[in-house]
Amino acid sequence: MDPYPKPLRDLISQLKRLPGIGEKTATRLALFILADRANLSGELSSCLKRVSEQIHLCPVCFNLTDSQRCAICRNPERDPSLICVVEEPSDVLALESAHVYRGLYHVLHGLISPLSGVGPEDIRLSELIERIRTSQVSEVIVATNPSVEGESTFHYVAKMLQDAHLSVNVSRIASGIPMGGELKYMDQVTIASALRYRRSLKDI
Amino acid sequence: MDPYPKPLRDLISQLKRLPGIGEKTATRLALFILADRANLSGELSSCLKRVSEQIHLCPVCFNLTDSQRCAICRNPERDPSLICVVEEPSDVLALESAHVYRGLYHVLHGLISPLSGVGPEDIRLSELIERIRTSQVSEVIVATNPSVEGESTFHYVAKMLQDAHLSVNVSRIASGIPMGGELKYMDQVTIASALRYRRSLKDI
Repeated sequence: MDPYPKPLRDLISQLKRLPGIGEKTATRLALFILADRANLSGELSSCLKRVSEQIHLCPVCFNLTDSQRCAICRNPERDPSLICVVEEPSDVLALESAHVYRGLYHVLHGLISPLSGVGPEDIRLSELIERIRTSQVSEVIVATNPSVEGESTFHYVAKMLQDAHLSVNVSRIASGIPMGGELKYMDQVTIASALRYRRSLKDI
Repeated sequence: MDPYPKPLRDLISQLKRLPGIGEKTATRLALFILADRANLSGELSSCLKRVSEQIHLCPVCFNLTDSQRCAICRNPERDPSLICVVEEPSDVLALESAHVYRGLYHVLHGLISPLSGVGPEDIRLSELIERIRTSQVSEVIVATNPSVEGESTFHYVAKMLQDAHLSVNVSRIASGIPMGGELKYMDQVTIASALRYRRSLKDI
């Protein structure tokens, strides 16, 4: 016999769909939500409703937004000649947290991955070409993760722009030992990359 | 600048109120909920709403229920002369999972803890006395955790029932080495308890 009433059991099942949350954690969260006197369930419920109703993709860069265009595309201080191509919206947050980049973004919502059945037409690549074609873009920085899929997407983007005869520079974010990292803990590919793309003293 | 739109930021803040969920996990969950195509946000939102609307405490044992009385109190096969006293609803689940106990429960919703300002009147103790007074109860099993608060609540319950001159047996769940546990990893108090409450061969 299940000692929990059905609405609680349903909430536990739904919480279990979240990444990294199993039966025990879902039960703990559900009981916490229920025991909370500060109306956590009401607040969460209305937040979830608002998120699904109000959040959509920016028609220009496909970042998440609740207004017509996203805050970055709307910002007149951002440099529209630079486009940074990323896999997903959380990558925009990561890059913004460095406070270095002042251009615009383009969120692909995926990476080319033949093994998972994701082809170039499944991600926002045609929109990227169209965007570069219709605006003054001087450089496209491909900031996908340094994984097999990230690298192949980078090469695909470079080839695609070349084939379209668009006069735009394509660059790739640097790969190497992260700040504070230690050589002895690094994998071979990272070390090889750090050596291969070493900078000459005069460039530093 | 916050690159996330407000409804998403609000959802992250609410998720952060859950136990064990910090900024990074909350962001990951919120983005997962948003990216999910199977309407996770809608399902979760309606589950939360139903939970807060339909779940209440059973007026007899104070376990969680969505009907007039809880499933255990309603079950005619449970022995009404046995009451197992626990701290919170999740303890009922833990005890039920052992498939051994066939009596009823009484959920205190807390333990006596003077340090946290929780006194006997803050938990469901007067309701327990009243329940024992008005029904045929032969034994009260106190199954609070073997912590300082759990032990003092046990002693308080025992004294309370004695003072009320109720002819009911009070017992405490056993404390000792858990099955599969190893002596060398056990704390002194557990080992002392296992020795002190050793069973004679004839009782096994």
